[in-house]
Amino acid sequence: MNEKTTAELEKLRGHIDNVDQQLLHLLRKRLDLVAQVGAVKHGAGLPIYAPQREAAMLAKRREEAANMDVSPQLIEDILRRLMRESYLNEKDVGFKQVKADLGPVVIVGGAGKLGGLFAQMLTLSGYEVRSLDKDDWQQADSIFEGAGLVIVTVPISITCDVILNQLNHLPDDCILADLTSIKSAPLDAMLTAHQGPVLGLHPMFGPDVGSLAKQVVVVCHGRGSEHYTWLLEQIKIWGARLVEAEADKHDKAMQLVQAMRHFSSFVYGLNLYREEADIDALLQFSSPIYRLELAMVGRLFAQSPELYADIIFAQQESMVAIGDYLDNYSQALSMLRQGDRQGFIDQFKQVAEWFGDFAPQFQRESRAMLQSVNDMKTN
Amino acid sequence: MNEKTTAELEKLRGHIDNVDQQLLHLLRKRLDLVAQVGAVKHGAGLPIYAPQREAAMLAKRREEAANMDVSPQLIEDILRRLMRESYLNEKDVGFKQVKADLGPVVIVGGAGKLGGLFAQMLTLSGYEVRSLDKDDWQQADSIFEGAGLVIVTVPISITCDVILNQLNHLPDDCILADLTSIKSAPLDAMLTAHQGPVLGLHPMFGPDVGSLAKQVVVVCHGRGSEHYTWLLEQIKIWGARLVEAEADKHDKAMQLVQAMRHFSSFVYGLNLYREEADIDALLQFSSPIYRLELAMVGRLFAQSPELYADIIFAQQESMVAIGDYLDNYSQALSMLRQGDRQGFIDQFKQVAEWFGDFAPQFQRESRAMLQSVNDMKTN
Repeated sequence: MNEKTTAELEKLRGHIDNVDQQLLHLLRKRLDLVAQVGAVKHGAGLPIYAPQREAAMLAKRREEAANMDVSPQLIEDILRRLMRESYLNEKDVGFKQVKADLGPVVIVGGAGKLGGLFAQMLTLSGYEVRSLDKDDWQQADSIFEGAGLVIVTVPISITCDVILNQLNHLPDDCILADLTSIKSAPLDAMLTAHQGPVLGLHPMFGPDVGSLAKQVVVVCHGRGSEHYTWLLEQIKIWGARLVEAEADKHDKAMQLVQAMRHFSSFVYGLNLYREEADIDALLQFSSPIYRLELAMVGRLFAQSPELYADIIFAQQESMVAIGDYLDNYSQALSMLRQGDRQGFIDQFKQVAEWFGDFAPQFQRESRAMLQSVNDMKTN
Repeated sequence: MNEKTTAELEKLRGHIDNVDQQLLHLLRKRLDLVAQVGAVKHGAGLPIYAPQREAAMLAKRREEAANMDVSPQLIEDILRRLMRESYLNEKDVGFKQVKADLGPVVIVGGAGKLGGLFAQMLTLSGYEVRSLDKDDWQQADSIFEGAGLVIVTVPISITCDVILNQLNHLPDDCILADLTSIKSAPLDAMLTAHQGPVLGLHPMFGPDVGSLAKQVVVVCHGRGSEHYTWLLEQIKIWGARLVEAEADKHDKAMQLVQAMRHFSSFVYGLNLYREEADIDALLQFSSPIYRLELAMVGRLFAQSPELYADIIFAQQESMVAIGDYLDNYSQALSMLRQGDRQGFIDQFKQVAEWFGDFAPQFQRESRAMLQSVNDMKTN
């Protein structure tokens, strides 16, 4: 590189530094303004996530960007990232309390991560929260005293036992709810153990989300919904989207969505281990898509084996879904071993037809994801 | 919502609109400045992607952000997104031509998408590019006349045939290269058919990437590397990272990275189809991680069945990798059916230990990805 080039580059980089300084100031200013919007909403008890308002704002910005010859997708991506940051900051303000006269909330399994997240959100909304974990049953009577809401979030394998044996003496007007990732059995247990309002919830996210904005919570109604409407409103104020479902339909979907999928990821990891795969080498040779897939498998093994055992063993019917996959895999492999290329292509086309418009939609979505993966590369 | 709240929100949103206008202007300015950097680099023949410079700049910005109470991760994410945009724009400037006195480049399979991408990049770098596709063999002699570089990118199933039967009369000093996703067999075929310089390349990305910045290209040396060093330099100028590999080691990795993985995604889609899964319902119940996984499977079926058949059938040895997965799945399922929860946990721990530091690393990476997936939600 000659001196002239070096000097030109240095000069331009100085300009870029200046622009980036201004950018930082602007980001700080926007975060502050959105925090003020949050405070006003907080005072008025409005949900922090307003999908229509957000969509309208983004459409307007895209148009303005196009007029300035800036890619509409660029401004949308940057604003979405900024909105995430603002949602995270909401926590500092706290949330409007929907039900001011509620007795204490008891979180059974409060020492767990998900219990901790709900305890935090409820505390930020002005509720008195008490935790009850496995060593606290001796003090159960005093902890439950006057409780307005009891939330059960203990390992799936013991959920029904805890409900049936320990939660059958709650005050009649207390709401009993659970956060288990299956819904039929815990809901039945709660309806048996408790005569008051009963509600099944399944938060469709891990405890490490920074904010509940846009996250899904599945709602399975139990009994006396008029008594817990406020709780659903409260969850909406945290930014989550509620999806109502019948417990058995939810559980059937979870056999595919959770048990089968986690199991096949587990086997994929097991397979790499048994093949003595060289992860470093695999990463060297990885396209963004494979890197992402490897990360999705590897992340499993950074988490609790008990948690995954719980999810996989939770429903006997999951074995059927897991077994069906094995049968399909085995049949497709026979086809491969026979060298039946045309058979593979025909089946592929059948499945593609069945996916219909979802296939190109998923391709677009994943393309955006893969670009993000590539953005993150550091060498 | 009362009038006062409405008025306050309107006022704040007006301020946010103003900030966003300034933001758009700043983005436009930054893109222009980086384009100027690109032009200077172009003139000097420097690669567009400079990892160390990028890392140093990001570290500085993170520090400045922290001083202003802006999240360092926020500014890094925004700048990375901006850099992607700038890389995309590089194409408008063109690229420095490393080898000015090269004869025409012939792309065999030039009507395909990957061939088209390489044709575009070479044209943008000042080379004369000729395409030869399946209907052009009658004119082959005139197309190949004076060729300085021939790049083969035809379906894997016919690659070796095309090389051995059609490319055995190239000028001796012409470079023969291929872009096939397996490397041993095509490399052997090229070395047999041609006496001059031979080079195997495997671009680890799809033809729909907007830019080659940060993308990986695997390089398998054939013969006469001193004659094609310029080509590797040229690819680096496009922003790609070169990874040198032995052909057989590369091919072995591809059995796991491509064949096995694509096959199991194929079976996953087949399984959903046979279970008559309701995709809409699955999406309703989907956590960000499952939505992402579903998208990674669904995207397969938006693409060419022949391409995937080619990849899966390319290496006989892939059947072994695919079969091993079946055996491991089958064994793990037996354990499940016996209700052996402890056995599952023990195996899980073994695999987790084998993953070592990669597991938490993958968890961090995937967490960032999942946040992006959540950002993209529109309702």
